[in-house]
Amino acid sequence: MIELTDIAYVRSGAADLDTAVRFAVDVVGMELTAQEDGVAYLRADQRHHCLALVGGESGVISSGFLVRDEDALAAAETELEKAGIAVARGDAKAARSRRVRDFIAFDDPFGNRVDLAIDQVTLTAPVHGGRAAGITEFGHLCLDAPDVREAYRFWNGHFNARVSDWIGDWACLMRIDPVHHKLAVFQGSQPGLCHINFQVGSLDDVMRNWHFLEANGVEIEMGPGRHPQSTAVFVYFKGPEGITYEYSWGVRLITDEDAWRPRYFDPAEPGSIDMWQGPTRRVHTQPQIRRPLGQS
Amino acid sequence: MIELTDIAYVRSGAADLDTAVRFAVDVVGMELTAQEDGVAYLRADQRHHCLALVGGESGVISSGFLVRDEDALAAAETELEKAGIAVARGDAKAARSRRVRDFIAFDDPFGNRVDLAIDQVTLTAPVHGGRAAGITEFGHLCLDAPDVREAYRFWNGHFNARVSDWIGDWACLMRIDPVHHKLAVFQGSQPGLCHINFQVGSLDDVMRNWHFLEANGVEIEMGPGRHPQSTAVFVYFKGPEGITYEYSWGVRLITDEDAWRPRYFDPAEPGSIDMWQGPTRRVHTQPQIRRPLGQS
Amino acid sequence: MIELTDIAYVRSGAADLDTAVRFAVDVVGMELTAQEDGVAYLRADQRHHCLALVGGESGVISSGFLVRDEDALAAAETELEKAGIAVARGDAKAARSRRVRDFIAFDDPFGNRVDLAIDQVTLTAPVHGGRAAGITEFGHLCLDAPDVREAYRFWNGHFNARVSDWIGDWACLMRIDPVHHKLAVFQGSQPGLCHINFQVGSLDDVMRNWHFLEANGVEIEMGPGRHPQSTAVFVYFKGPEGITYEYSWGVRLITDEDAWRPRYFDPAEPGSIDMWQGPTRRVHTQPQIRRPLGQS
Amino acid sequence: MIELTDIAYVRSGAADLDTAVRFAVDVVGMELTAQEDGVAYLRADQRHHCLALVGGESGVISSGFLVRDEDALAAAETELEKAGIAVARGDAKAARSRRVRDFIAFDDPFGNRVDLAIDQVTLTAPVHGGRAAGITEFGHLCLDAPDVREAYRFWNGHFNARVSDWIGDWACLMRIDPVHHKLAVFQGSQPGLCHINFQVGSLDDVMRNWHFLEANGVEIEMGPGRHPQSTAVFVYFKGPEGITYEYSWGVRLITDEDAWRPRYFDPAEPGSIDMWQGPTRRVHTQPQIRRPLGQS
Amino acid sequence: MIELTDIAYVRSGAADLDTAVRFAVDVVGMELTAQEDGVAYLRADQRHHCLALVGGESGVISSGFLVRDEDALAAAETELEKAGIAVARGDAKAARSRRVRDFIAFDDPFGNRVDLAIDQVTLTAPVHGGRAAGITEFGHLCLDAPDVREAYRFWNGHFNARVSDWIGDWACLMRIDPVHHKLAVFQGSQPGLCHINFQVGSLDDVMRNWHFLEANGVEIEMGPGRHPQSTAVFVYFKGPEGITYEYSWGVRLITDEDAWRPRYFDPAEPGSIDMWQGPTRRVHTQPQIRRPLGQS
Amino acid sequence: MIELTDIAYVRSGAADLDTAVRFAVDVVGMELTAQEDGVAYLRADQRHHCLALVGGESGVISSGFLVRDEDALAAAETELEKAGIAVARGDAKAARSRRVRDFIAFDDPFGNRVDLAIDQVTLTAPVHGGRAAGITEFGHLCLDAPDVREAYRFWNGHFNARVSDWIGDWACLMRIDPVHHKLAVFQGSQPGLCHINFQVGSLDDVMRNWHFLEANGVEIEMGPGRHPQSTAVFVYFKGPEGITYEYSWGVRLITDEDAWRPRYFDPAEPGSIDMWQGPTRRVHTQPQIRRPLGQS
Repeated sequence: MIELTDIAYVRSGAADLDTAVRFAVDVVGMELTAQEDGVAYLRADQRHHCLALVGGESGVISSGFLVRDEDALAAAETELEKAGIAVARGDAKAARSRRVRDFIAFDDPFGNRVDLAIDQVTLTAPVHGGRAAGITEFGHLCLDAPDVREAYRFWNGHFNARVSDWIGDWACLMRIDPVHHKLAVFQGSQPGLCHINFQVGSLDDVMRNWHFLEANGVEIEMGPGRHPQSTAVFVYFKGPEGITYEYSWGVRLITDEDAWRPRYFDPAEPGSIDMWQGPTRRVHTQPQIRRPLGQS
Repeated sequence: MIELTDIAYVRSGAADLDTAVRFAVDVVGMELTAQEDGVAYLRADQRHHCLALVGGESGVISSGFLVRDEDALAAAETELEKAGIAVARGDAKAARSRRVRDFIAFDDPFGNRVDLAIDQVTLTAPVHGGRAAGITEFGHLCLDAPDVREAYRFWNGHFNARVSDWIGDWACLMRIDPVHHKLAVFQGSQPGLCHINFQVGSLDDVMRNWHFLEANGVEIEMGPGRHPQSTAVFVYFKGPEGITYEYSWGVRLITDEDAWRPRYFDPAEPGSIDMWQGPTRRVHTQPQIRRPLGQS
Repeated sequence: MIELTDIAYVRSGAADLDTAVRFAVDVVGMELTAQEDGVAYLRADQRHHCLALVGGESGVISSGFLVRDEDALAAAETELEKAGIAVARGDAKAARSRRVRDFIAFDDPFGNRVDLAIDQVTLTAPVHGGRAAGITEFGHLCLDAPDVREAYRFWNGHFNARVSDWIGDWACLMRIDPVHHKLAVFQGSQPGLCHINFQVGSLDDVMRNWHFLEANGVEIEMGPGRHPQSTAVFVYFKGPEGITYEYSWGVRLITDEDAWRPRYFDPAEPGSIDMWQGPTRRVHTQPQIRRPLGQS
Repeated sequence: MIELTDIAYVRSGAADLDTAVRFAVDVVGMELTAQEDGVAYLRADQRHHCLALVGGESGVISSGFLVRDEDALAAAETELEKAGIAVARGDAKAARSRRVRDFIAFDDPFGNRVDLAIDQVTLTAPVHGGRAAGITEFGHLCLDAPDVREAYRFWNGHFNARVSDWIGDWACLMRIDPVHHKLAVFQGSQPGLCHINFQVGSLDDVMRNWHFLEANGVEIEMGPGRHPQSTAVFVYFKGPEGITYEYSWGVRLITDEDAWRPRYFDPAEPGSIDMWQGPTRRVHTQPQIRRPLGQS
Repeated sequence: MIELTDIAYVRSGAADLDTAVRFAVDVVGMELTAQEDGVAYLRADQRHHCLALVGGESGVISSGFLVRDEDALAAAETELEKAGIAVARGDAKAARSRRVRDFIAFDDPFGNRVDLAIDQVTLTAPVHGGRAAGITEFGHLCLDAPDVREAYRFWNGHFNARVSDWIGDWACLMRIDPVHHKLAVFQGSQPGLCHINFQVGSLDDVMRNWHFLEANGVEIEMGPGRHPQSTAVFVYFKGPEGITYEYSWGVRLITDEDAWRPRYFDPAEPGSIDMWQGPTRRVHTQPQIRRPLGQS
Repeated sequence: MIELTDIAYVRSGAADLDTAVRFAVDVVGMELTAQEDGVAYLRADQRHHCLALVGGESGVISSGFLVRDEDALAAAETELEKAGIAVARGDAKAARSRRVRDFIAFDDPFGNRVDLAIDQVTLTAPVHGGRAAGITEFGHLCLDAPDVREAYRFWNGHFNARVSDWIGDWACLMRIDPVHHKLAVFQGSQPGLCHINFQVGSLDDVMRNWHFLEANGVEIEMGPGRHPQSTAVFVYFKGPEGITYEYSWGVRLITDEDAWRPRYFDPAEPGSIDMWQGPTRRVHTQPQIRRPLGQS
């Protein structure tokens, strides 16, 4: 079993890099850490970056997770290959571009490109975002798959991902540490990044951001609302290049692994997506860019 | 100084009593305690009622407060008369109709009719409202006055009302116990009941009620939002007979009287009414019915 | 006795307003709230501003304190005039420019211009400073006087200022609430603003700011060090127009008024200014601009 | 009533200054702060010194207490003079020699010379004593008087000294703050300093010091034992120039003034001096040097 | 796996023993426990000594660690020998000189001489250092190795050393108990003692010591600063014989072994060595003296 | 491994039974539970007795420990016999005389006779000792052996005894529950009972007993002092028949088995026996009476 120790980053291609960066800084409220070799690095917490915007083709390039150390990385490589999954070791340049010491890449059974990395660079300076959005942490990422049960079998079969709750056949919410979910899979016909989540420091931040987005003409996709699964208050909105961002606050921590029982919510029942029973809709997924494995 | 020990009720005339009661029960979520002699009694907590709807002319009849006992009531009568304010002692029938043992009535300098009562009936049965709106308590009432500073001088000069915060010349929020405000005065050209507030048990109740109201075609006047003064999350909506109802949750308690410093918020600054910076507007005031003092 | 409820602002003239504002935002890390009529408003906390930079003659214009309400303001006016101190009531335009509802102005016996105001505007939006300096609050202000004992007699005689500690004849540190000092008087031959203090959120903020200032060529006047009186870790630095700014963290709260005994530190003993025993020097004072009282 | 805010120092003449200083540092474990003009200053805590050894005639010169400020000092001067007690204001040189800003001197009715001072210098450096004796604080001082009841009438009549406990006619233990006693009067035929007390940090310090003193040939006068009045574990020993020193640990704090009832212990009963019932004896008193009041 | 229960001592050769001892006592603030057979024993806590200065050739002789008991020592000997590492059992004289009951010695793969010992002598007297430096404990020791990853494999492969954090390829910080690191390995071309660390009791001690060192002409090698890994505030300075000493305060305790994730800091990023972002430099390493294993 | 659940009693022969009993009651302060068949039973806590004085030959007869139940007793018998140690099952009369349900007896490798028993009688009446000595519990017992390391191997090899601390080759202090030691072995040429320990309720009890013993002509063997290992304050004294008694207070509890590291104290260092550094000496051991195993 491969132990994911944390989520690391999303790497995404931007056809109009400047607009995408401006939105990430001025609207989302992230900090631009660095910009070099056509890549803009955006941070939200002590990670060097959690979003790397790569000038070029639009679409998600890969989703990065961490494993503990070199031995764990080598063991993961072996385990995946034994399971018949093609794995490519990243070269030094690609690793440097991700600000990790080493990584491997593979595609999940649905075509989502995943990086497993070690030693993501930690920054010590306080984050100074583009506005007072109240972001405290890169919270989780969500991928699409046509069959969320099958996706669960993949992530739970090879990794330490445990289901926290089910929303029918629409979504599987999985944890790799006490946070209710750091990895979610939503039902979608094609692989892609469903959304990238940022935790904010208070209810007020979510609600203030909601009005800020409206006042600035940003498309609110859903919310404000509250997920009954994680108890997180959320708002989803759509940025350039088709990336869906989410702010949320109040996510549940599952501190007693043994006591937790995954629950099942029927999406047809009112309140299963938003316990406040506001209008809900499927948010937009940024499609996966399909490239050969060895190519960064 | 007259010590108000609590707020007691709002008494309001309804031209279409049935519709008003149905709204209070089915939409607001109160419980119909009793209906007799053309008066419908609605409760939200252990008070016998906090809203009495009286069939007949539409408009607020009086706002009721409690004082400690008969001596306090007599002393209040004397103090008000000495200040040149006409006071009428309520008769037994009127007292019975208010479910209090005794009361006096007077008009504040702006024409708002006020009852000071003793011994309001307490009910012990759990409240069973018309729907699961989450109401826990009759929270506060708000009156209109053309000059909120003058209103403050009246309430602070004769009563134990202390200002908790100012919103420019728009509003004076006053406490008579640790709750941030149980009596508010909003600027308005005519006397009347600006709104009647109900506390609910959770953030979720406010938000779920918001969507319920929208789904049921009720006019949302303001919110959801959060008042920076009381920190209460609110939603205001308009019922029959022009009554504005408010749900709120999370009101601030001022437990250290000495340490509290009233603050001043400029209504022209963003966030001074709603710290989430959502759209704000003046809610509708139900006008005061003007009747001779001795008339119930 | 006049009860000061808090410090409100420093109002200071800037010959080169743009440079002064850029320094306040980009170096000190404040937020520019508004700029109008030749005045730049800078905030560090929920106050509308704590520093107003007024284009024109360089020097401190006035130091603002708050009293509770209109009655307190009127009483203060009377008390000061009885003591033979000339007092001028601010006009509406001057009050508006200070973002207060009303104020009076007077000169202390040494020529420092002081405003006593009511109802300073409170803002609700989170502060978004020009950089991550970690500022949490406008902490205190310090004035100069040729005789600190005489200054103490003035402030303690007419106001609720209590001495917290003495540094020989060099400084008198006074509190008006539990904070060790919100008003300090340093020995100086001419009236003026010795320094304006900002609290930061952690030791790390003080120290990181120290190196940031050095790296940006700002003159460090003293520190990093720790005052044995307030236990605050400090760094003093000099900004445009001769304003000395101070960052500090860890100020002592005096919560038991009766138990506190003011202490006496001999400036000739090592560690009496900086208990870490680093080098110390007199920081620069921005001179008081002398104008007729009625002039804003 | 004169409010003593603390004890300040003992000033004592030493015929053989070098020996006395070496004992205070190497045996008692104090730190030599400074030595100038024939005076050796010894500290045990944040006070500049609590023992000043003055080369010359052997015997106690004065015992110093603090009052709050100049006004308190002037008021004390007036009160004592009204009571017919001769008072001398210290000159600048004498004040400097005591490291206080100002002081007055008088003799109690029994001939003990007392200084009342303001603004004793506080040092900020950690104390580094001559050995690890564990001293944490100058604890109390004890004077002799032929009639302890009369002494109480003097100290309680003019000062804020309250009796904490009586030991028959042998001793009156008085507090001026929560510490059980900071001033004690023991029965003795002549005025003098009965002993000077140092608090140590633990029981172990008292006991280790006891054996250290024995091993170094110091005369143990009493103890180790435990006073039932203050619950302090003690050891008394005799130093050069006839000074009796005491180490103690575990002194009782009287935090509820209203609840405390002074108790009476009969010295003839076992355990009244030492609740462990070890052997007890009268410790040696250093006689008061008699000099004209105005002479430092 | 060999379980190290603690660090024990550093043994270092001093060409000018007197100067080295005087520095350790008068500047560093340690206590000279004993001096015999050409060895000076210096203590900082309850250990008999943590630094033994041996007159003769300059350079580090060995670094001592503890294992639980004789059986553990014998098992360690066997395990190391099985791994092809030469091990020598110390003779009685060498053990006595180290104040342990028994020990074995070996060289790590890079040439650092290590002692594994049992039953280091514990002293009970309070430490009385040469000055009030505030030292509370021998904190950690740091060795050099050309490849810190290889060093980690050695210490983690044979011992209970777990990595707490990485600083790129510059440093591996390892714990053997809850303290963030008691053993560090820094990249260096030759074996040697990079530095010896002493914990002090407060932030003030670090900072006061910094100025004390400067005032006494001691070379500050780095700091004051704060390591983001351990959160310890530090100052490094250079003593005689090329020993680098470190004072630090506030080291992180890792109390939940399972939850801790080693982090990776890129030394090229600002703040990775000193989160206050002060200037950093490589401290001086005292080279390892190379002697045959059996020779004490 | 045999799990000792507690210590039970010491059984000791007294040539002058009356004198020994009178001492135990009147001086030590125990309660005489019963006296029958030439055996005097003395209690200190809820145990029926912890000291049985048997009229006849002077010397220790056996030291009793408890195991959990009959199965544990049978298993212990088997384990000891397998190890080549002769074991005798006690008969009913002998068991009754010990107030246990059953027991086995054996000699340790040094000749100390040990009983392992089950179901020692518990008494419920409050203990009423012969005087107010403050005894709360039978604390521990100490045996002699010529080689304490060998003794440790015996007790740790066959029983759940863990070393808590070493005093060189003089003593091994072992725990069988959280109490620092309930079984100690001191170096002595012959088997015997080194001392029997009683816990008292306070420091004051130890010290008052010390003076009481002195006043009554009892030989103080050591103390008062404090053991740095257990932190217990002690006094040792010699009773009739050569029994050494110990009072102590403040024994350390080891509640975290994993975190405890046995320490090593060199008896040649000052303070290793008595951290107060008072005079120390070897206390007197009551020799073991040598009788055939089957004989009670």
